[in-house]
Amino acid sequence: MSTPVALVGIGKIAEDQHLPAIASSDDWHLAATVSRSGSVPDVEGFTGIEEMLATRPDIPVISLCLPPAPRFAYAQAALEAGRHVMLEKPPGATLAEVHTLAAMARERGLTLFASWHSRAACGVAPAREWLADKRITRVHIDWQEDVREWHPGQDWVFEPGGMGVFDPGINALSILTEILPHPVHLTAATLDFPANRATPIAANLRFTGNTTAHFNWLQEGPPTWDIDVETSEGTLHLGKGGSTLSIGGADHPLPRNTEYAGLYARMAECIALGISDVDLAPMVHVADAFTLGQRVEAAEFSF
Amino acid sequence: MSTPVALVGIGKIAEDQHLPAIASSDDWHLAATVSRSGSVPDVEGFTGIEEMLATRPDIPVISLCLPPAPRFAYAQAALEAGRHVMLEKPPGATLAEVHTLAAMARERGLTLFASWHSRAACGVAPAREWLADKRITRVHIDWQEDVREWHPGQDWVFEPGGMGVFDPGINALSILTEILPHPVHLTAATLDFPANRATPIAANLRFTGNTTAHFNWLQEGPPTWDIDVETSEGTLHLGKGGSTLSIGGADHPLPRNTEYAGLYARMAECIALGISDVDLAPMVHVADAFTLGQRVEAAEFSF
Repeated sequence: MSTPVALVGIGKIAEDQHLPAIASSDDWHLAATVSRSGSVPDVEGFTGIEEMLATRPDIPVISLCLPPAPRFAYAQAALEAGRHVMLEKPPGATLAEVHTLAAMARERGLTLFASWHSRAACGVAPAREWLADKRITRVHIDWQEDVREWHPGQDWVFEPGGMGVFDPGINALSILTEILPHPVHLTAATLDFPANRATPIAANLRFTGNTTAHFNWLQEGPPTWDIDVETSEGTLHLGKGGSTLSIGGADHPLPRNTEYAGLYARMAECIALGISDVDLAPMVHVADAFTLGQRVEAAEFSF
Repeated sequence: MSTPVALVGIGKIAEDQHLPAIASSDDWHLAATVSRSGSVPDVEGFTGIEEMLATRPDIPVISLCLPPAPRFAYAQAALEAGRHVMLEKPPGATLAEVHTLAAMARERGLTLFASWHSRAACGVAPAREWLADKRITRVHIDWQEDVREWHPGQDWVFEPGGMGVFDPGINALSILTEILPHPVHLTAATLDFPANRATPIAANLRFTGNTTAHFNWLQEGPPTWDIDVETSEGTLHLGKGGSTLSIGGADHPLPRNTEYAGLYARMAECIALGISDVDLAPMVHVADAFTLGQRVEAAEFSF
């Protein structure tokens, strides 16, 4: 029997990823939505979470894919109502609020899952396995895309808490922190802020372990979502956001890429095991970049 | 018998606080210093930590009070050499590096103590105790001092990783996170960056729980280091950085204020118990402020 789930925030990421993943899973069925403007045909829709929680005590799991800034209040309400919660990335606008949610879930014996969809890309687990015993000499992340294509008109990404280019960049950092056998930390960064915006549109990061990252949100055409890891036994290349893998120039066979299906399977597993899964390492690197980074003023940006 | 300790970074905070605290303690004696330029009469002085660690295997504890940016490399070297480590606040330039140090200490069975001297102020423990069962309606932090007096000519505080006005402000946040019975998180912030500097010279923070903070580094004359906590049973006031306490307008009797003596006593206790003490909550709030904060440009600053 499948578990009812309520989806909160019916926008682009819900339409593109969450709805198909839920529809294709035997573990789950969509029982309600909460959204100010969006809805799903033949599914009960609410505009406020409190009303949904009060009306539908039969729904034990709430999946939140609205923007990070308002997410805490929804997650808090769901946990207070005794529901398990799954969070889109990044899990919040601040680290402290996610620590608070994790403590709430722990106290109540509920599952909190801070998901990182790029970690579920099909090349990530094999990359992690191959790197586990290698001597790594250099790592470079090249993460460039067109914000106008991936966040069309979504001004919130440039508002405080929206994280700017770290919204895609945190995907790369979620892979980095998953595949490296040793932790790294930031030592220097430059962040390019458009003169009329509160978050960066590009960033260059330098970490320990000879690790660097270049994030750029102004690339036109196809995105570049590449990670190269040089080792004493050849270079590992993760391409297309972790969905392709080559080692020493040879393609590595991979299963089909099903990121969000993997996340919903992991949520079902966490609930069955009675555990939470909250790894804030990718978000810590972003916060460190904002703390340590040197600001550079860039040209004004409009959608 | 007292334990030998090596002090790394012989600058203002070492002279003002660490040396007197070590000298007045029966637990400790100063066995060596590491500093590029400073030294202590009649104590063996080194300019590099590697040489000190190699030459003095008899010193089991290293106390680091150099600026946060270079601190990681020293702490890593000390832990790798099997020494216990005590860190001045803030414990590093990034959160990730402190997580790495904590993992290193754990793996090696060593003590890492991320100290917060303001938490050892004499009014803090009684404030925490009194607030434990109160209904808190409002909290305000007012933390203002003259950077020219407290960091004379120390340009590093305005360099990336130096944290700017959060260097004193984190003292207030270390008290806040110690005395409140429930966690709070940042919801909005403005940070005033001098046009010629990389870190803020003033900040206004808004947290959940009707909690606000004002940090200013341009106050001339005596510093203001106040925290007011309004409750349904009257207002608690911590003054002078936690060293005075009044409740409902009545002064609360306190023991003598001996912050750094308390830190060194805690370090001795942690080593005896075989534990570490690393609470990053104050630094998480600072990282959140840099991530979420709206930047405001302020007048140029020079010492």
